[in-house]
This record gives sequence, C-alpha cells and structure tokens, in this order.
Amino acid sequence: MTTERPDVIKESGGLELPPLGDTWYIAGWAPEFEPSLPVSRMIAGEQMVLYRVPGGRMVGLEDRCPHRWAPLSLGRVEGEHIRCMYHGVKYGSDGQCVEVPGQDLVPKTLCVRSYPIVEKHHLVWVWIGDPAKAHPSRVPDLSVMDEPQWRLYQGVVEYKANHALISDNLLDLTHVRFLHERTLGRPVATVSGTPSGPPQVRAEPRRLDNGVRAEGWYPGSRIIAIPKSVPDGDLWMRSDYIVPGILISRGGMYAPGTATECEGLPPGTQHVPLSDGLAIHAVTPMRARNTRYFYLQGFRVSDAEKDETDAIWQVSQEAFVEDLKMIEAQQENVALDSPHRMGGIAADRGLVMFRSLMKRLISDRN
Amino acid sequence: MTTERPDVIKESGGLELPPLGDTWYIAGWAPEFEPSLPVSRMIAGEQMVLYRVPGGRMVGLEDRCPHRWAPLSLGRVEGEHIRCMYHGVKYGSDGQCVEVPGQDLVPKTLCVRSYPIVEKHHLVWVWIGDPAKAHPSRVPDLSVMDEPQWRLYQGVVEYKANHALISDNLLDLTHVRFLHERTLGRPVATVSGTPSGPPQVRAEPRRLDNGVRAEGWYPGSRIIAIPKSVPDGDLWMRSDYIVPGILISRGGMYAPGTATECEGLPPGTQHVPLSDGLAIHAVTPMRARNTRYFYLQGFRVSDAEKDETDAIWQVSQEAFVEDLKMIEAQQENVALDSPHRMGGIAADRGLVMFRSLMKRLISDRN
Amino acid sequence: MTTERPDVIKESGGLELPPLGDTWYIAGWAPEFEPSLPVSRMIAGEQMVLYRVPGGRMVGLEDRCPHRWAPLSLGRVEGEHIRCMYHGVKYGSDGQCVEVPGQDLVPKTLCVRSYPIVEKHHLVWVWIGDPAKAHPSRVPDLSVMDEPQWRLYQGVVEYKANHALISDNLLDLTHVRFLHERTLGRPVATVSGTPSGPPQVRAEPRRLDNGVRAEGWYPGSRIIAIPKSVPDGDLWMRSDYIVPGILISRGGMYAPGTATECEGLPPGTQHVPLSDGLAIHAVTPMRARNTRYFYLQGFRVSDAEKDETDAIWQVSQEAFVEDLKMIEAQQENVALDSPHRMGGIAADRGLVMFRSLMKRLISDRN
Repeated sequence: MTTERPDVIKESGGLELPPLGDTWYIAGWAPEFEPSLPVSRMIAGEQMVLYRVPGGRMVGLEDRCPHRWAPLSLGRVEGEHIRCMYHGVKYGSDGQCVEVPGQDLVPKTLCVRSYPIVEKHHLVWVWIGDPAKAHPSRVPDLSVMDEPQWRLYQGVVEYKANHALISDNLLDLTHVRFLHERTLGRPVATVSGTPSGPPQVRAEPRRLDNGVRAEGWYPGSRIIAIPKSVPDGDLWMRSDYIVPGILISRGGMYAPGTATECEGLPPGTQHVPLSDGLAIHAVTPMRARNTRYFYLQGFRVSDAEKDETDAIWQVSQEAFVEDLKMIEAQQENVALDSPHRMGGIAADRGLVMFRSLMKRLISDRN
Repeated sequence: MTTERPDVIKESGGLELPPLGDTWYIAGWAPEFEPSLPVSRMIAGEQMVLYRVPGGRMVGLEDRCPHRWAPLSLGRVEGEHIRCMYHGVKYGSDGQCVEVPGQDLVPKTLCVRSYPIVEKHHLVWVWIGDPAKAHPSRVPDLSVMDEPQWRLYQGVVEYKANHALISDNLLDLTHVRFLHERTLGRPVATVSGTPSGPPQVRAEPRRLDNGVRAEGWYPGSRIIAIPKSVPDGDLWMRSDYIVPGILISRGGMYAPGTATECEGLPPGTQHVPLSDGLAIHAVTPMRARNTRYFYLQGFRVSDAEKDETDAIWQVSQEAFVEDLKMIEAQQENVALDSPHRMGGIAADRGLVMFRSLMKRLISDRN
Repeated sequence: MTTERPDVIKESGGLELPPLGDTWYIAGWAPEFEPSLPVSRMIAGEQMVLYRVPGGRMVGLEDRCPHRWAPLSLGRVEGEHIRCMYHGVKYGSDGQCVEVPGQDLVPKTLCVRSYPIVEKHHLVWVWIGDPAKAHPSRVPDLSVMDEPQWRLYQGVVEYKANHALISDNLLDLTHVRFLHERTLGRPVATVSGTPSGPPQVRAEPRRLDNGVRAEGWYPGSRIIAIPKSVPDGDLWMRSDYIVPGILISRGGMYAPGTATECEGLPPGTQHVPLSDGLAIHAVTPMRARNTRYFYLQGFRVSDAEKDETDAIWQVSQEAFVEDLKMIEAQQENVALDSPHRMGGIAADRGLVMFRSLMKRLISDRN
C-alpha cells in the first residue's frame, strides 16, 4: 500500500502557501466544544481530538490511539481522561496511557502527542510546532471582542482552498466592489437621500511587526454595515491583517469634518464616533487545499436594534458565499497548473506585503 | 503542493488516445451560447471561457485571469470585453487587458490566450493548436445539415471515457444488434407485414483522405429510423467517420430493384429516395477520460409528421444511454489495467483504419 | 495516460496486509447468484463475472472481453455460455471464445481467464492463485452450517477498509465490552434476576495448523445471544479464526457445575447443552482498502421461537454497524500515515498469532 499523506502541506513557489509553524491556530469558537464531547479537528495537517473536561478546561491530543490507530474522537471522555472505545485503552490529558483493560502493566511507550491549548477571546487556540515555545502571550490579541459594547454575530465555514487564497481575499478589499456588487458593495441610501456609491476602500497598506495595516477616512461614504439611523458623516476604517491569517477590522461614522480636523490621522479619544463596528475573520489551514474560515461581526448595541443588525448580518453571510464560490473556483484553476504566469496590479500591495512576511516566517520557523 | 495536471492527456499504447492537435473542435451547439453569458468549457485539456458578444460573434479566451487565477467564466461580459468579477480586471476579445481598476497603467503582460473560434453548421468550433493554422476552411464540412429539407433533433452528453472509445463505438455498427437489441437494433414491422430483422450493416469500410467510409445496399431491410408510411424497398446507407471524430451518416429507402440497377454502387441523382435521413455524431475530448458527445438526427420533413419522428428520436436517445453505460464500464476496465492483451475481429476493420489514421496525424501534429 | 492499478494490493510493513494467494475466497452467499444473471465481483484485486448456468453450476470468468475490454457482467448468459453484449462475442464456461458474429473463424487467442469455483456450505467460493492447486478439499470446513438443528441468519456488507483490520477486530473480542457497550456487550438479565455483566471473553488463544483458537468456560455468565428461556448455568465458547480470514464461533449454556466437572476442558459428548449457538464471519479482500464481509448467526431451533432470535439478530446487526464505523475510521487514520509507531497490549495475542501465520503464508505463496 502506498503511504500517501494527503494532509502534508509542502512549500510552493506560487499562490499556495504551507501553514506556518510555531503558531497558535484557532480550533473553533468556544461553544463548539461542549463538555465531555470529543471533537475531531485537522489543523495544519495534524489530526487531533479536542475535548472539554469537567471544570471547562480544554484538552488537545493526537487523534490516534497508538494501540491499533483507532481515532480517539470516537472515544469517551472520562473526567480528565479519554478512553478509546475500540479496545478500551485510556489516556490522560497529557497524552500518557493510564489504563489498559485486562492487564496491570501500562507501557510508558503507549502515549499520544498532547497539544498546547488555550481558550481566549471566545476562541479555542491550539499550538502547532515546538511545545516549548507555546506561550499563551503569543495568542493574537483579539481583546477588542471582549469589550462590553458589542452585539456579536459569528460563524464558521470550510473552504476547499488553500488558506493563502483566503488571506489574499481579505487583504485586498477592492474586490468588494466587483465580487460583492449585489451585497456588501452595493450603493446604500444616505440619510440625506442621495445614494452613496460603493465604498472606495483604498487606503495605502503599511507593514506592522506582525502584519499589514490599512486605515483611512472616507468622508461622505456609507457602507452597508452602518445602521440606517446613524447620521451621515466621515467614515473611518482600519483593517489589520496579522499572522497567521487574522483580519481585525474596525470602523465607524464620525461627525462631518472630523477627517479634516484629524488631518488624515486616526480619530483620537476626544472624537466620539456616531457608530462603531467590528469585524474579525481568521483562517486555519487544515490540509493543503482545505481551510476552516471563522468570521465575526460586531455592532455597538446602542447603534441599532437587533432586527436591523440581524438584517445586516444576513447580507454579510450572502457575501461570504460569494467569496467561497469564487475562491474555490480560483483554487480549481490553481490545481490545474502551476501558477508561473501571474500579473500583479497596484491593489496587490497589501497582500504582497503580507505574503512576503509569511514566507520569511515560514522560512525561519518551519 | 503537487502540481498535478489531471487535464493533460498523454499518448498511450492502448485503447486510449490523446487529442489531436491543430484541429477544430466542437465547443457546443450554437444555442448553448446565449448573448453575453460566459460559458466555461474544457477542450482537449484546455480550460476556456466562451461568450457571444453583441452582434452575435463568439469569443474564446483562456478561463483564468492572470492576476489571481480566478475563472473569467464567473465574470461579466461588457460589450466585446469580459471583466473578471473578482477584482475587476477587464480583457478584450483578443485576450489583452484593457482596464485595471484603481490604476491608469495597464501592463502589456496582463493578457490571456485567445482561441480562434468560428460558428458554422449550427455549431461553435474552437481551434486547439497553432493559431496560425486555424483556417476556417479546415472546419469539417457538415453543410448537409444546412439543407432545408430536414427536421433536426440534437443533443449533447458528457462521457466519463476517452474519446477514442466513443469513436470505436461509432465506427463499428455491428454493436447495434447486441447493445441496442431493445432499441435501434430491434426488428421492425415492414409495410408488407413481415417483420424485418436487425439491420446487418456490414459494408466494407474504405479509407477516405480524412477518415473512413462504409456504404452499402440492404434490399428488403428496414431500420427504426425509416418512418412507417415509407414503402418497403432497398435501403441504402453511407457512414463517413472523419477526423477528429465525426460521424456523418445518411441513408434512405429506394424503390425495390434500385440496388440491382445500381450494381452495388451508390444511388445516382436519377434515383429519387422514398425517404431520406441524416445522423451526425461527434466527440470532443475534454480530459484524458472525459469527452463531450454531440449527436444530431435529421428526417426529411415530407417523410413523416413530427409526432412520428419525435417517437423515433425518443428511441435513439434510449440507445445513447445504452452506449454511455457500456462505454463508461469499458473505460473502467481499461483504467484498471494497461490494455496489452486484445483480440481483433473482422468487424474491427473500420475502427482500425481510423485509429491508424489518427495515430499518424497525432504523431505528425502533436 | 497513466496505467494506475488501484486494485493491486502490495505488501505493507504495517497494519494492512495484501491478500493471500492460492486460496479459496468467498464470492457470496449462494442465493446472491440467481440463474443466468451475471454478477460482477472484485476478489483480491481480480475483476470477475460470476454466473449460474442452467442446472445450477457456477461459472467464474475474467470480467473483460478481450475484444474491446467491455465487461462480460453486462453480457447475456446463454446456457453454459456468456455473450458480450457490446459486439456479441461469445465465450464458453472455460473462458474460450466460441463465436464471433460475422465471421467463421474463431481465433484461439480470444479467451478470458476462467476461475475455479465451487459451491459449498451455502457459499460460492472462488480460487485465487494457481488453478492447478485449486482442490475443493481445500475449501475451509464450514460443515457445521449444514447441521439441521440451526435457524440461520446471514448478511453481507462492504467495508472501505483492508481485510486485515477486520480480521483484527474478530480476533480480539475484548472490544465487545467497549465498542459494543450498547449492543452485544451490554449487561443481560439472568434467569435468576441478577444482571450478568459484559462477557469477559478472555480465553488464552493458541495456534491451530490453519489459524488460532480461543476457548473457555464462563460460569455464571450470559451473553445476548443466549435466548431468555435458557436457564442460567456455565457458558462455554470456542472461537476458531482460520486462514484466510474466517471466524467459526460456537457456544452454549451447560448445567451449572459442568465447567468444574470438565476441569476447564471442552464439554464432551456426554454433556448436553441447554442451548447451542453458531456464528461465522468471513472477510474477502476486494482491493487494498475494500473488503466484503460475510456474517452468519445460527440458533438451535429448539432453543427459542423465531421472534426472539429475530430480535437477537437485530442487535447483532446494530453491532456490525458499530464495527463498520470504527474500522473505517481506523482505516482513514492508517491511510493518513505509515503506521510505524504502534503499541501492543496483552489482548493482541490472538491477532498477533494470526498475523504471523498470514505473513508466513503470504511470503510462501504470493
């Protein structure tokens, strides 16, 4: 039999990237993991079982009982332990075998890999790489989610595409006008009655230590995410795209003239936004051409009733399906041939910066 | 990532053949291409987008925007142009980029391959190979379809099989008696009341410049395609199978004694047929083991009412499903092993002639 | 085109085994083969057509007409012969061509492989390997099935797994307590009212010439297969697992004290069982990771009404689904990586014995 490893992701010279090592990856939204219910997850080519023990702590183990290679995710959580439900071999949360039915001796060699795991910002994070480097402080800072003003919506979807193609999508928002012309990119009515055209989100990207930032003022613009009761004014938006593939986008409406007053710089604490909004999107590579995609949208509770933000969220979800369809088709084209002929355009600046950073990190860590 | 190319079709020593290069291939029936609606097609391993511009002209381009490899077939036709609906890059019908949103400079290197394309005989033809050799005069002559006497029926189906297996099928009509024993090959009632047995279509094939011809007289025979009101007589049939895989079959009933009078040669202009019929079948290789199969049947309007020819067409379509099932099963057997042990029989003469011609042309052109 | 052979099963150093050569394999339960109805079967990587001729004899031929590689299983049985229904070439039950439509000469080279085949013990057996060694006496002895006292239930299911993983399952019944905790392994009520715990089927396995035997007494135990009206007593069970993958399991209840009286040895003819039961399970490798799995359960007619044994059979079938789900998941894990790290436990003794025997035979015969 061939010992093919469809899960192993190798370096490529083209559009596809392998997953970055020594990194915290999002395994799921916290509520995806119910107490004592084992869940199977493929993250960066590694198949693992995740479970929540009594008291709430998360455990992550290799999803393969070394006895006969049955998946532990078909097993039973017993307190801190998990028992393989094929022949009953039991493991502790450190991956060490603690019981073999029918024998007293428990061989030390019977163990599975244990993954560093933390729960933070409503998300469960798993460390892929050298466990010695798995400091919880390296979890990307998404504490903005924890602020109390938000009404949050979130979801997850699986892509049949390499994670880098999805990051590209999030790093170049000029696609909103074309791909999302019927959803996020459609003109919206202004409070004054004149429709506002599609958002021209073209701020120049610049490098951050761990990613790329694009921020800017759009006086007189409105986007679909701004509730209708919010007056017209100066729209301000900032999008940070950080390693290994997380978009943190925040923006809101300010009183007319604020952009001029700020001379193009971000609003200060003295500027009270008329509305405030948050979007977080993140990719977790599963296999070479499979990615789990997490998304969240937040509205300031005081900006609009739930009915209205429900409706905005509905439009966002339609847009996510537009992205999915396009990116999976793009992946099929990439799979047909090696991408040696490619043409760059000006709008690529942000994604080229981020790819360059990722490639350097991959080269350093993997 | 591996850069596998499932679409590349290589030479094989056995039953499967690669597609012939420097050839016009049928992309579809003309009505398959509605104005301004882009259609994706895989032809001979090349993925292309086809669209009809205002005024009706057809355009064929590589289905892959060189910017980020998104398929142009998900794009929007704008006059003669097509716009990629991922980031909005626009191309002319010659494949040259004409607009990049957000920048003035349009790089000359941003272009896609343009395919020679013509519309002729109700069909859209695409040239695969050296564009300099794409003379419309090289489109196979199917002008018989354009004659006004016909009531035409046509269809298309996708096969999970190499094109050569389908050509084999069309080149050896002895299979009608067995594979189609319940449809095309079943005995039919003669006008005199005695049922006519299955057609013994066994004329000796001979080589044409661009294919193989089999023609002959079958006095006293009837086939299902002859309308019931046509008197019994001498059946005459001619089948030409021409490069790269097109069957042009014509036949009809003549007054009793015509075969003898013609001394086995084809009927002359002085012989007025009691009925006249046409069948055209053609294969377009998609990938190594995927083929698009086009078929057409024509009846002389004056021979029968539409109800009757509708019913005959229904039987033909049932027979096409019998072919599909058998040939896909044959392909599965071929895929299991390399076809080194094969046994020829006398009925193979036509297909052996045609395969020999195809292999010589493939060797010359590819 | 590549000439990949997905059906060829090669040796592996790990959990998967190739099929053993020079062996009778079960092709199906006898009633699966209706008179004159050709059936396609993949056995040990060989695709064959099986059919029952008038009079009842079974024939097994290569499922591939050498003319154009069409499957004979789409053909028509004509007496002892089978006709390919593509172009009508006909073969005898010895695989030799007997008729080519349209020609007098029948080439001797036109022939298909013929497989030795016998029907025995309600099963159809096909010989894979050197036909000269295909003695019917080498068919595994399942004559116990032919005894008249049984009410028999049988079935068949296809696994997406290597046959050796299924044999492992049948060779280590300690899994019953875990995998089947809700079906076969659940506690059952005793006649006295005290529930009997899950069966502790842990008899020491020992080598037979052609397999492995585990037998033992379990005084005071009951299992779900024992009808409720049978009094409590001493349970005795024997499981033989024989080459190439057949479990013959027999067991019953005896009067209390019989185990002691027998001093641990099997019951003699002087001991009349209060109940008697039979189970036969067998694997037939299809491809590397596909296996056909046959199972039979027998109850002594005099032990219980049909309603009760129907209900027990229902539970058994639920357990077979539990096995299927676990073993296919195990196979997926095996396919992800080469199984170089494995940990043995005491319960593996029987399967290690059997694997060692199989590997020696494979090395000798293949």
